[in-house]
Amino acid sequence: MRASGIRHFAIDRVEAGDASAVDDAIAIEEPLEIRLAFSRPDGRRGEQSISVTMRTPGNDEELAAGFLFTEGIIHDAADIASIGPCGPPAINGLINVVRVELAESVRVDLDRLERHFYTSSSCGVCGKSSLDAVAVQGRYDINESELTLGADVLDSLPAALRSQQDAFEATGGLHASGLFDASGQIVQVREDVGRHNALDKLIGYALMQEMLPLSDYGVIVSGRASFELLQKAMMAGLPMLAAVGAPSSLAIELARQFDMTLAGFVKPGLFNLYARPDRVE
Amino acid sequence: MRASGIRHFAIDRVEAGDASAVDDAIAIEEPLEIRLAFSRPDGRRGEQSISVTMRTPGNDEELAAGFLFTEGIIHDAADIASIGPCGPPAINGLINVVRVELAESVRVDLDRLERHFYTSSSCGVCGKSSLDAVAVQGRYDINESELTLGADVLDSLPAALRSQQDAFEATGGLHASGLFDASGQIVQVREDVGRHNALDKLIGYALMQEMLPLSDYGVIVSGRASFELLQKAMMAGLPMLAAVGAPSSLAIELARQFDMTLAGFVKPGLFNLYARPDRVE
Repeated sequence: MRASGIRHFAIDRVEAGDASAVDDAIAIEEPLEIRLAFSRPDGRRGEQSISVTMRTPGNDEELAAGFLFTEGIIHDAADIASIGPCGPPAINGLINVVRVELAESVRVDLDRLERHFYTSSSCGVCGKSSLDAVAVQGRYDINESELTLGADVLDSLPAALRSQQDAFEATGGLHASGLFDASGQIVQVREDVGRHNALDKLIGYALMQEMLPLSDYGVIVSGRASFELLQKAMMAGLPMLAAVGAPSSLAIELARQFDMTLAGFVKPGLFNLYARPDRVE
Repeated sequence: MRASGIRHFAIDRVEAGDASAVDDAIAIEEPLEIRLAFSRPDGRRGEQSISVTMRTPGNDEELAAGFLFTEGIIHDAADIASIGPCGPPAINGLINVVRVELAESVRVDLDRLERHFYTSSSCGVCGKSSLDAVAVQGRYDINESELTLGADVLDSLPAALRSQQDAFEATGGLHASGLFDASGQIVQVREDVGRHNALDKLIGYALMQEMLPLSDYGVIVSGRASFELLQKAMMAGLPMLAAVGAPSSLAIELARQFDMTLAGFVKPGLFNLYARPDRVE
């Protein structure tokens, strides 16, 4: 499945001023439209395109399910009546539309969703209002997790993730999110040109496997830790996010507010802990 | 201005299993709301919030102007009657709203803008339709550029960019976009937690300095080259984009369709050319 995310291009490689023609493996980026069939608050059915994201093809159903879950539109796997590719392939041979049909009982108020997430607080637009919005959406209490991890286990995660990044190995151009357990085992990996998509795919996988909340797991991400990644991890009940790169201020603030452990710049023998360091022994 | 993008946090640094409390410089991530005062197609005035993006504070007016330009809402600096921060500071002391008042003569059809960019083509959602949408929006012919660059100049750009990344140096957590001329001189740099924001800030700067189209310049970006970055560069008339990281398939396709030079994995003595290699000597 993941190998489908690569396309080959004839390019020029220039070394010490000399160009040679080579065949290069490139990470595919293509739009994915998520189309939703749903019941309105008054019970009438509707169907509408709700998102177009630039993604790497593969695990598209997981991406759609994970997106709907982390946006707070659905709450468990039973909310999805059916999910699958929709329509004929586009001119490139890819099917770039996923249609999600929600169960009759799930009511969706698209007007409310369109009033933007970050501007929902009366305090105006600021980091604090973004955190308040996360608090409203989240359903899991991170403090119910009993996960702890050895420092030596934590700092081995980037290498473990890298060893499972099939498409990155070929292209150098993909973000990854890996689900790990307390022993440091990477139990599932998803890759994408968009780091938020890689995490949505992973959470969509967990949703459809009925693994939520992910209280016994952590997630390792290949890049930086942004607000958006912490928000998605929090929605899935993940008590720990470890990043190969730097966190942002708002990522730290979110982790501290919701008792998530946040590690950054993780490498062998060295890492930073920005929130809830007590889960690392 | 750029130094305002940093906040200090007390964190734990763990080295070989031993934790020590340190003070760490972190890249700020905060929402920015762009509020637009404009004339409707029938001439009536309206005012509306059109975007909330997570950004690093600093150069907010440039970010708003660059966003409006690369989205095709405005076409030159004269389209902006006034631009500035709006309202009192939020609880964190930052002003997170920029209000842009457009000139009377600029007509904006928000309904048309809300029908999504990528889905505007009759072929359905695919990379090709995304490229077609760029073709409709772009106003500059890249082939009017006469820019050429030596291979030794190109491969020196990442180090030149890095030497001007003030906030990255402190935090390790910011993307950068740098405008360079044919001699390899970096003439302007912008940083942000979001790579698209860093480029919007740079293009907003150029717009307000009336430097568009940027036919005599190229842009070097600190990370990967996505469709979105190429689209923004193309809108600004930039004939060359060089990336420290990998390009995506759709970034290459966009560069090839619009005759832009695209370089990736740029480092001393080694880089790849994915499109229009003839501008590199």
